[in-house]
Amino acid sequence: MKLKMMYSFLNSDLTIIEEALEETVQAESPLLHQASLHLLKAGGKRIRPVFVLLAGKFGAYDIDKIKNVAVALELIHMASLVHDDVIDDAELRRGKPTIKAKWDNRIAMYTGDYIFARALELMTEIEKPFAHQILANTLVELCIGEIEQIKDKYNFEQNTRNYFRRIKRKTAILIAVSCQLGAIAADVDEEIHKKLYQFGYYVGMSYQIIDDVLDFTGTEKQLGKPTGDDLHQGNITLPVLFAMRDERIRERIIKVQASTERDEIEQIIAMIKESGAIEESLLVSDRYLKKGLEILNELPQNRAKKTLRDIAKIIGKRKF
Amino acid sequence: MKLKMMYSFLNSDLTIIEEALEETVQAESPLLHQASLHLLKAGGKRIRPVFVLLAGKFGAYDIDKIKNVAVALELIHMASLVHDDVIDDAELRRGKPTIKAKWDNRIAMYTGDYIFARALELMTEIEKPFAHQILANTLVELCIGEIEQIKDKYNFEQNTRNYFRRIKRKTAILIAVSCQLGAIAADVDEEIHKKLYQFGYYVGMSYQIIDDVLDFTGTEKQLGKPTGDDLHQGNITLPVLFAMRDERIRERIIKVQASTERDEIEQIIAMIKESGAIEESLLVSDRYLKKGLEILNELPQNRAKKTLRDIAKIIGKRKF
Repeated sequence: MKLKMMYSFLNSDLTIIEEALEETVQAESPLLHQASLHLLKAGGKRIRPVFVLLAGKFGAYDIDKIKNVAVALELIHMASLVHDDVIDDAELRRGKPTIKAKWDNRIAMYTGDYIFARALELMTEIEKPFAHQILANTLVELCIGEIEQIKDKYNFEQNTRNYFRRIKRKTAILIAVSCQLGAIAADVDEEIHKKLYQFGYYVGMSYQIIDDVLDFTGTEKQLGKPTGDDLHQGNITLPVLFAMRDERIRERIIKVQASTERDEIEQIIAMIKESGAIEESLLVSDRYLKKGLEILNELPQNRAKKTLRDIAKIIGKRKF
Repeated sequence: MKLKMMYSFLNSDLTIIEEALEETVQAESPLLHQASLHLLKAGGKRIRPVFVLLAGKFGAYDIDKIKNVAVALELIHMASLVHDDVIDDAELRRGKPTIKAKWDNRIAMYTGDYIFARALELMTEIEKPFAHQILANTLVELCIGEIEQIKDKYNFEQNTRNYFRRIKRKTAILIAVSCQLGAIAADVDEEIHKKLYQFGYYVGMSYQIIDDVLDFTGTEKQLGKPTGDDLHQGNITLPVLFAMRDERIRERIIKVQASTERDEIEQIIAMIKESGAIEESLLVSDRYLKKGLEILNELPQNRAKKTLRDIAKIIGKRKF
């Protein structure tokens, strides 16, 4: 079952979100408008808006209000991707040229800043100070995560603790906060929106680990970039850390740098896949997912809860 | 009289601001902390915090509350400088190596993002939704201004209207909003905080025009970068636009590019200085300043008002 079919009852609201996304990035500046639209049209799973909306279903769901949060969080995610592409020197994102490839790094940086400022504008529609505090804290963590990622590049001495802390900041918190802020915008009680945060956090961790596994198991067509690109760029992910326990593989991996030949990268990918590191990583992902599902059990019964469960399960099995 | 002596009655509060600035940029990540601190220690006039505090004096001044706004606005200014340096490929800022020169562009980008996120965190202490709306709109304008600046680089067909719109977005709005948000944080009435915005806007325009004049009239030592660097980098400012009315100067200027020899730049600087464009620009700056001072007349009498007047006048005459 496809992800999108799972929340077909949200379809009309997701169309509203999609329109609001386009409307929001409209700018007097044609350059900004084009760059933002380019990014928007590249697609994406819109996972964060879906979580915002579903979390809102636990309270007084009002699409006119909650759409601001949904759009804001997707935009923040998009802004972080644009800045990410500057860092990673990435030419492709989702199979399409990145903003930095199509324009340049400077345009990419300010397009990110602009999209981000637009997101903040939308968030001001939510007149709850602690919603803004939650978001601001999230942004700080996100930035620290990004800097840590730069610092940890090609650092083969890091351990799984570094990795988990980094993906928490880089990915899991924003998904957690999508759930929480969706609930807060719908006036959900603290006890419940905190549980939704927890759910989002566990699912987010699982999601990122699978993303990092797919970097090795996906095809170039599925990934929209070469297999093993994360490793080649120096991003040390869970499968790499697990595989490096084997001294023979470790010796090869620690020599990886940006200039390493494609042939060598492919041999290393094969070794990692044979080492059991993929399966081990998936087990960790499953463990996070299971914790997320347990939290869901503590939430009131409704259609959104069933959908969150289905989505979480699909995330745990996704192939790309 | 020096700028700092003018607001000596704010000294103890400005010390609090300085400490809060340092405290705010503290980060678990040593890299982020060092880069932020490097920026902070490079100094700056702290004009925005001074305006925030002085505007706050028109209402219920509470340093514990208002300091959040003062620090936030200085940090937003700093964050925009860091991103600016990435764009401008600047090696020096205030005579010290820029973050991008000392570390690299990627660190500079995320240090900017981080400082900015910290600013937002502080702002959440102000529990007034429309303060956040004002700030978010400002950030959008700031980004559009930055993108326009990139787009308009080495574009010798632009006119003074482009220039004024750009410096409004790039500089004047943030100073205007410093005044307005300082007042709002001190519960000042709408009529007054809007006038303070207007005052800040006019002073900000005047300030930026003088900055652009100093690029030609200042020495390398005063500026902390070579004279005429803006023009060399392709930033077309008011003196340039005025000087280009002379066809003979225009012919030389439109050939300027990043690779232009220093000798040619110096000859053009001399031509611009001889053309009367400097004096004409200063007249425009004076006109803005006069409008700002007129707005002040409409505000209630107090010590802060007197100081705002003195600062505005000094800004109109500053040499660097």
